[in-house]
Amino acid sequence: MSDSVKRVVLAFSGGLDTSVILKWLQQEYQCEVVTFTADLGQGEELGPARRVAETLGVKAEHIFIEDLREEFVKDFVFPMMRANALYEGLYLLGTSIARPLISKRQIEIAKLTGADAVSHGATGKGNDQIRFELGYYGLNPDVKVIAPWREWDLTSRTRLIEFAEKHQIPIPKDKRGESPFSCDANMLHTSSEGKVLEDPWEEVPDYVYSRTNNPEDAPDTPEYITIDFERGDGVAINGEAMSPATLLEKLNEYGREHGIGRLDLVENRFIGMKSRGMYETPGGTIYHAAHRGIEQLTLDRGAAHLKDELAPRYAELVYNGFWFSPEREMLQAAIDHSQVRVNGTVRLKLYKGSVNVVGRKSPDSLYNEKVVTFEDDAGAYDQKDAEGFIKLNALRLKLLGKRNG
Amino acid sequence: MSDSVKRVVLAFSGGLDTSVILKWLQQEYQCEVVTFTADLGQGEELGPARRVAETLGVKAEHIFIEDLREEFVKDFVFPMMRANALYEGLYLLGTSIARPLISKRQIEIAKLTGADAVSHGATGKGNDQIRFELGYYGLNPDVKVIAPWREWDLTSRTRLIEFAEKHQIPIPKDKRGESPFSCDANMLHTSSEGKVLEDPWEEVPDYVYSRTNNPEDAPDTPEYITIDFERGDGVAINGEAMSPATLLEKLNEYGREHGIGRLDLVENRFIGMKSRGMYETPGGTIYHAAHRGIEQLTLDRGAAHLKDELAPRYAELVYNGFWFSPEREMLQAAIDHSQVRVNGTVRLKLYKGSVNVVGRKSPDSLYNEKVVTFEDDAGAYDQKDAEGFIKLNALRLKLLGKRNG
Amino acid sequence: MSDSVKRVVLAFSGGLDTSVILKWLQQEYQCEVVTFTADLGQGEELGPARRVAETLGVKAEHIFIEDLREEFVKDFVFPMMRANALYEGLYLLGTSIARPLISKRQIEIAKLTGADAVSHGATGKGNDQIRFELGYYGLNPDVKVIAPWREWDLTSRTRLIEFAEKHQIPIPKDKRGESPFSCDANMLHTSSEGKVLEDPWEEVPDYVYSRTNNPEDAPDTPEYITIDFERGDGVAINGEAMSPATLLEKLNEYGREHGIGRLDLVENRFIGMKSRGMYETPGGTIYHAAHRGIEQLTLDRGAAHLKDELAPRYAELVYNGFWFSPEREMLQAAIDHSQVRVNGTVRLKLYKGSVNVVGRKSPDSLYNEKVVTFEDDAGAYDQKDAEGFIKLNALRLKLLGKRNG
Amino acid sequence: MSDSVKRVVLAFSGGLDTSVILKWLQQEYQCEVVTFTADLGQGEELGPARRVAETLGVKAEHIFIEDLREEFVKDFVFPMMRANALYEGLYLLGTSIARPLISKRQIEIAKLTGADAVSHGATGKGNDQIRFELGYYGLNPDVKVIAPWREWDLTSRTRLIEFAEKHQIPIPKDKRGESPFSCDANMLHTSSEGKVLEDPWEEVPDYVYSRTNNPEDAPDTPEYITIDFERGDGVAINGEAMSPATLLEKLNEYGREHGIGRLDLVENRFIGMKSRGMYETPGGTIYHAAHRGIEQLTLDRGAAHLKDELAPRYAELVYNGFWFSPEREMLQAAIDHSQVRVNGTVRLKLYKGSVNVVGRKSPDSLYNEKVVTFEDDAGAYDQKDAEGFIKLNALRLKLLGKRNG
Repeated sequence: MSDSVKRVVLAFSGGLDTSVILKWLQQEYQCEVVTFTADLGQGEELGPARRVAETLGVKAEHIFIEDLREEFVKDFVFPMMRANALYEGLYLLGTSIARPLISKRQIEIAKLTGADAVSHGATGKGNDQIRFELGYYGLNPDVKVIAPWREWDLTSRTRLIEFAEKHQIPIPKDKRGESPFSCDANMLHTSSEGKVLEDPWEEVPDYVYSRTNNPEDAPDTPEYITIDFERGDGVAINGEAMSPATLLEKLNEYGREHGIGRLDLVENRFIGMKSRGMYETPGGTIYHAAHRGIEQLTLDRGAAHLKDELAPRYAELVYNGFWFSPEREMLQAAIDHSQVRVNGTVRLKLYKGSVNVVGRKSPDSLYNEKVVTFEDDAGAYDQKDAEGFIKLNALRLKLLGKRNG
Repeated sequence: MSDSVKRVVLAFSGGLDTSVILKWLQQEYQCEVVTFTADLGQGEELGPARRVAETLGVKAEHIFIEDLREEFVKDFVFPMMRANALYEGLYLLGTSIARPLISKRQIEIAKLTGADAVSHGATGKGNDQIRFELGYYGLNPDVKVIAPWREWDLTSRTRLIEFAEKHQIPIPKDKRGESPFSCDANMLHTSSEGKVLEDPWEEVPDYVYSRTNNPEDAPDTPEYITIDFERGDGVAINGEAMSPATLLEKLNEYGREHGIGRLDLVENRFIGMKSRGMYETPGGTIYHAAHRGIEQLTLDRGAAHLKDELAPRYAELVYNGFWFSPEREMLQAAIDHSQVRVNGTVRLKLYKGSVNVVGRKSPDSLYNEKVVTFEDDAGAYDQKDAEGFIKLNALRLKLLGKRNG
Repeated sequence: MSDSVKRVVLAFSGGLDTSVILKWLQQEYQCEVVTFTADLGQGEELGPARRVAETLGVKAEHIFIEDLREEFVKDFVFPMMRANALYEGLYLLGTSIARPLISKRQIEIAKLTGADAVSHGATGKGNDQIRFELGYYGLNPDVKVIAPWREWDLTSRTRLIEFAEKHQIPIPKDKRGESPFSCDANMLHTSSEGKVLEDPWEEVPDYVYSRTNNPEDAPDTPEYITIDFERGDGVAINGEAMSPATLLEKLNEYGREHGIGRLDLVENRFIGMKSRGMYETPGGTIYHAAHRGIEQLTLDRGAAHLKDELAPRYAELVYNGFWFSPEREMLQAAIDHSQVRVNGTVRLKLYKGSVNVVGRKSPDSLYNEKVVTFEDDAGAYDQKDAEGFIKLNALRLKLLGKRNG
Repeated sequence: MSDSVKRVVLAFSGGLDTSVILKWLQQEYQCEVVTFTADLGQGEELGPARRVAETLGVKAEHIFIEDLREEFVKDFVFPMMRANALYEGLYLLGTSIARPLISKRQIEIAKLTGADAVSHGATGKGNDQIRFELGYYGLNPDVKVIAPWREWDLTSRTRLIEFAEKHQIPIPKDKRGESPFSCDANMLHTSSEGKVLEDPWEEVPDYVYSRTNNPEDAPDTPEYITIDFERGDGVAINGEAMSPATLLEKLNEYGREHGIGRLDLVENRFIGMKSRGMYETPGGTIYHAAHRGIEQLTLDRGAAHLKDELAPRYAELVYNGFWFSPEREMLQAAIDHSQVRVNGTVRLKLYKGSVNVVGRKSPDSLYNEKVVTFEDDAGAYDQKDAEGFIKLNALRLKLLGKRNG
């Protein structure tokens, strides 16, 4: 187990679990630990991460705390949104899309600090271990990967807490007891699963939701907003230009207010079992609807339908952890090619859990007055053309009918 | 144009347009007209259809008025719903799915009555002409198809009304003026397009909606219902067994009450132009969500993902009018194969325009307590397996990384 | 490792490796071994298998030797051929398609004999272990699987032979030294890989081929044969009706004579590495060409193109070992639906390594004199129709051109 | 029909048919004709094209004769070959791929010469009219398209020749009688169809072939060649660097000599009927095999399999005339992304109609000695990993088996 490891870069939240891992790595591998804590907009303070790391003896120059929110939205969330990716028809992939960025930075920091190993706190039954590790191996084939949850003997919460107590690791009060469910959060979404959610017949209790109002408590009056797009990416809300992360954050506020983006899902994990989760993706849900809205006006049918056929595969790749794979990049190249003229403005109505596109306009519209004129212009659209179109589309069916008849 | 035609079966609503067509066919082709009026749950009385046909001289034995609601839902709507088909990601295909059934019955009635031609009232700029005619030609390659809107000179409403007046065709009061939009309806949905809807930036006015409450006027209290499925098809609501059409009708009532199923869409027509439409699919929207919900529990991942990849193609085929095509039937065979164990109950929350799955259970669940036990059973799920799984999934990426690095 | 096992069904060829496995299982697991030897047309005598099993103490009623050739061709090879499946564009999947049948019989025999485990002789670096084991687990989720090559310490040929000598296991003379490559064979093909084939730049030496003449040594005169198809399956050669296995065997003779079906391939294994193999699929190569030939005449374009799009996925599933998976079965349902009218006769020319379709006829042809007459019949094919067809296909491109221009 | 046309750019071969069209356009439309004659390597002299055009009164500055061979291969054939595109599994798309280039130049020349119309000599029953016209409309939505074969009354060869005689159009001797089949040729291939080829049961007579030796007459000794690739495109033969067109021409010579690239096909036309054609693609067939060979070594499995799944769609788009469409461009972007490291050398054996890859090497190989070392290196490939890999791939199948069992 304990191959010789010199220095390991740990994806470190500062919470109980990764603090225990930090200590365990130091003990078990007799190695230096470099901590990497990313601000992906999960809404937690990162200050404690530094304090805990220091307490546990991590050198100051080995504590990396970085605000990656803009990179996260610009280089990961937005490209994925260009694909209209929905896993199993419904899920906006909020957890999946954050992992590759963390992997990438861990590998970069390993290079900077001369570390030969990386580690993460994902369990052995989930998807995240795969997403982290496919990223690690793809970006540095020679890196040593340590997955404590698959190695150690701290297999119950009691033993974990005993370990923490023994090593003076701070234990947040609310971690003493069993949590009724487990969470992951970043700027795009919060996910919850386990415990009280495990019976898929039982409705998700309201207290599980943390990012959105209950639609029944949302305002009784709809709110209208606009989002501007350039080359397939959101650039402004209500006419005000914003950076990617600012824009998503602002949409999160709208979504929270109006109770938008809750999803109760039974999904298929890559490792082969079904799990039941609850997701809140307030801003992302609004953004997804808006992106489809602007595409309706600006994408040609051929491009739009090809995208629709490729989207499930793209979503599967992201979910399964293959962000840094040739096939995801190939699909991205195809998708990005389609987005060059996806410019314009979408108007949305937000109301008690729903987001609906109610208007769209674009300088690059393929539906506009010129088209209408074009239709009516004698000779430009000749209804007689439809006859030929239908007859030749029918020809093979006629031949079939003759044979089969 | 006027090839010799002996007898023509007209898809006849009894309304102004098809009444004019009836007369025009008699005049232009000097032929007998057989009228076929289908009750697909469009919510109009069919009595007038008989009266108008009689008035215009159609023989009693040539007036066919049929209630096809059960066949429509059982053999067309439900098979399509098994596919989770959404055209361009959003549209439930309510108009598209009705056309093949009408085509099929027209061809059957043509055989019964010795007719050599069929005719319909769809215009030359839309999709419906294609859907009707691909059906006709596929089912009877030798049939003569008459599409009056592509042939005649009644190209304005004024001239149409003049023609009606001249021939004592009854003109409903509300047809005298220009309608602010045009409609199609059946049990699955109502669609509206044209006129006031033509500017895709303008919100659809509330008076265009006829099948659903405005969500803002819907009840302030959510309602919960259950739908039972057998072999992928709905069979009961709240535990009460129902026929397909009764079930869909009941869901329409729920959807109307809670303002569910409104869609404002800019879509790509098969003939190559974009159009903007408004759809109301109250019961179908609930049903679609429920079907996905029960599949979550009962479909294996391999089946589920293959279905997701095939669904856009399936939807395109239905939209474009290729219901009676080998490729749609092939996809249906694949889809139906997957539905054998799609049994169980879905619980849904209906509230102010939203439908959400909040629970699902099934005797054929692939997610259940046995699975949980299975996971925890020592040896059955060994977390060590995950390491091998990840390492071999990563192997090609490592080799790539080594080469590219 | 040695969980308690009572009785294990071993896929047993009677050769050195599986004989050693037999003994090793008895020793290591202290369990009874049931041997299963299948005649899949690999061209070896099966008598020795019985003798070796008896010598090693297997009870007579636990020695299963079965001729599965007809089942193999009828239920595995032919369904796969209906799909025109080619892995990575070239490989006819001869090894892959045999594994599920063996798995299935092992599980059936385990039930018959009350065995609680199954075992095979595939190595830990190849695809076959996956194909065997996915079959086992899918057909009996509770079965214990023993894969000696992943468990034992007989990791070199020398140690294997020492073990054999120590236990009086008969060692064929040609197995004493290192073989210059390793082989797998069945009625569909022979594959070779390893050793002298490992450098993909070096041409495969002629002595590696065992099932086909070198094309340069094949007859200087072409030979013509016909194959008759019914519902997509071959039923006769040169007009003589034959069972599936007889037909494939006969085609193997033709292929051997004319040097047909050699393939030198670098392929991607499911476990993530590339390997270089040599395949000989003499009869299968002829059959594949013939099946495409009869489909050309009898399949509608919609069906044919959908099949072409699904075929790579189907091939991947078979290659990766997912024969007994819902998604392979779904694809098969779609494919089989298309084959109902794939009837007729194909004429082929065999010559020095090549097989070419030179003629095809069918009672279910969609290309025939009636079609020609149909084309020339005034009104049936109106060249004017082409104009409308083109114009409406062009409409979206025109709109694009106007926008982009 | 004769809308006012000022000047029309005609795709002009100089042969009888397009000469008649030239004259007919002058007469029927009372317009100036600009002739455009492209050298795509069809192997005909272009001198006569100029003489005929001059004779028929075309202004010298309106006669365009251009050598497009390099552009043809570099920008059309090679990109298509990167996709491994085969229409209906077999056809290398030699005719289809030439049309977009001709369309593009006609539209460019129309702009240069101030022409408002374009014209071509393709008939109303074929695919080429579609390919030309989709190109025209996409590149210039306002252009007027004249398709004489769909308009005029010269519907028999006799009347065409009468028209030619009446207008002193030179008539090649071999065009006086009915040709036994019709041809199209360019550097990539020659196609023949019609007349003696119309019965798909009859073998194609040897005299129809013009570009390849009969395999039976090809050399009795195999020939070996190498092709070098850079970024997915051929750059050298036997180590000698060549331009794209030179390389393809050289491969054509090899193919001719060894009788490679003949194809007898019944195919599905876009307009809905089946046709039987004969194709000779000597160099292209060699190139296609070689490209697959180098991809085997240099493409990752994920990229390779995605390409295989996209290839049928790509081929269909090219065949149907959608070269200049967003969806073909999107697929090209994905494909081109995969080709960046497709570098190396393929060794091929040419013999009596067959081309076989017998070796490949690459500086970017993903299969090489380092990989082998990697495999054997203790810990790098641990056979135990396979167990976890298989078990988690099997997990969903086990759960299925438990439910279904």
